[in-house]
Amino acid sequence: MNARDRSDSAFRDDVLAAGLLVPSSVDGVYGRSETYENVAYGIERYVTRLGEHEVEGRLDFPPVLPRSAFERTGYLSSFPHLMGSIHSFAGDEGLHTDMVAQAHAGEKWAANLEPTDVMLCSAACHSLYPGLAGYLPPGGQAVQVTGWCFRREPSLRVTRMQAFRMVERVYVGEQDTAVVMRDRWLEQGRESLIAVGLDVDTVPANDPFFGRSGRLLAQSQRETGLKFELVFSFSGDEEPVALASSNLHQDHFGEAFGISTAAGTLAHSTCFGWGVDRIVLALLCRYGTNPDRWPLAVRGVLWP
Amino acid sequence: MNARDRSDSAFRDDVLAAGLLVPSSVDGVYGRSETYENVAYGIERYVTRLGEHEVEGRLDFPPVLPRSAFERTGYLSSFPHLMGSIHSFAGDEGLHTDMVAQAHAGEKWAANLEPTDVMLCSAACHSLYPGLAGYLPPGGQAVQVTGWCFRREPSLRVTRMQAFRMVERVYVGEQDTAVVMRDRWLEQGRESLIAVGLDVDTVPANDPFFGRSGRLLAQSQRETGLKFELVFSFSGDEEPVALASSNLHQDHFGEAFGISTAAGTLAHSTCFGWGVDRIVLALLCRYGTNPDRWPLAVRGVLWP
Repeated sequence: MNARDRSDSAFRDDVLAAGLLVPSSVDGVYGRSETYENVAYGIERYVTRLGEHEVEGRLDFPPVLPRSAFERTGYLSSFPHLMGSIHSFAGDEGLHTDMVAQAHAGEKWAANLEPTDVMLCSAACHSLYPGLAGYLPPGGQAVQVTGWCFRREPSLRVTRMQAFRMVERVYVGEQDTAVVMRDRWLEQGRESLIAVGLDVDTVPANDPFFGRSGRLLAQSQRETGLKFELVFSFSGDEEPVALASSNLHQDHFGEAFGISTAAGTLAHSTCFGWGVDRIVLALLCRYGTNPDRWPLAVRGVLWP
Repeated sequence: MNARDRSDSAFRDDVLAAGLLVPSSVDGVYGRSETYENVAYGIERYVTRLGEHEVEGRLDFPPVLPRSAFERTGYLSSFPHLMGSIHSFAGDEGLHTDMVAQAHAGEKWAANLEPTDVMLCSAACHSLYPGLAGYLPPGGQAVQVTGWCFRREPSLRVTRMQAFRMVERVYVGEQDTAVVMRDRWLEQGRESLIAVGLDVDTVPANDPFFGRSGRLLAQSQRETGLKFELVFSFSGDEEPVALASSNLHQDHFGEAFGISTAAGTLAHSTCFGWGVDRIVLALLCRYGTNPDRWPLAVRGVLWP
């Protein structure tokens, strides 16, 4: 039976039964097996090779970023329900004794903590922009960024993890070039997935903006064609899932982080992101849970 | 001039000037260049190969772990100042509007957030123990775990990052075997660093326990020989820095997570952890900031 004829929960059961992911007591937080990691690393290397002539450099960011950078992204306003704010203990020994006692009593000890100056990273490219403040070189700049991202959306759907890896290409520079790069990377991204047998569709999309006013933002984002997703059907009877996405930010980040083109105008930007974990899962769905038995052509692309 | 004749801040300047690490506005949070990442990955592969016959499996964990697991580790009691608790927004649109207004006014908006059921991972092995609850196979179990760890200790010392990668070997099982594994892995760990020219010393150590009562715990840990570190001198006039460490936990995690030996006694455990980022930095300090010019023998070990 083709994996795609099954439900998402049956696919999840297969992935867990094969030991590829190890569940925890929290939905969407998994340990990863050596086999799973080998596939993930193969995908990261693969898309990195594809982008060698597209970007001028590559940066890997830690899972945390400065709170001041997070505050500029607009995430607080648009996606407050998905953020991860990092808090720690800054009190004295008396407060510590009380807090430990609360924990032993099963009470909410974390109310004693203070927000730190770091947040969990919501999208890999957010860590890049602060370092671009000021004037860009002529023609702008294209960079590949990778990192762990966090989104607070516990789910039993194995394709919706709270912590996941993302590889992104980011262009920051001229308005016209941003549109050109968006179009080019969206097509290259589609080809990268088709090449390993993942028959994705390119569809207009919107982000999950918070609240009622968020619904208007989502509608506007869709109508202006700022976001596209490459979606894959894990099963016949459920919504297709985005394996990758393209965003045209216009001058949103240019303004937020004070980034100018060489000519002194506000920088525009675009990013194309591969969801590494979802691509691993799509391959497992498409070819089965034993990568040793995947088609040679696919193995050759992942592990040349 | 040998890098080790310089101060830590001069070494940091060199690493940043070479573009290997990209500083952020928060001390101890850095982006990593492609070159840096290649060294880090080389180290991870190297120590993984060394451990192939030492462990039965390998797991990679995300940067977050369940709060319930964190609560069992004892970290809240011993190292509250280093923890990273993840909070998010669970309020309604009215509270959201207020919070965004507070943020715009430069006020402490994060007080509106609620603790989630996840924490940042403090040590890679913490994510492993919940899955071992119950009875171990005869002889116990040895696993390699890798992951991003977080410790809330902002510092300008480049060797003290807030977010860093760790590779650990963990044995959980019989009391006697835990001591045997501790001794063996400590010696193998020392050899792994000596083999790439890092002349580390094995020294008794203690963890940075919180508060006055913590000082007694630290003293006891040292006197009972439960913790050893492999330390390296980055510069002549500063304290050597741990590149790796060994911990004998006795039955601490066995009791906390309900892990029993096959015979039904409380499991003992030990771990040996390589601080991947510190080893990268030690190699940069020892051989210079251009890995292309490192000795062939070292390059051959990292990239065989």
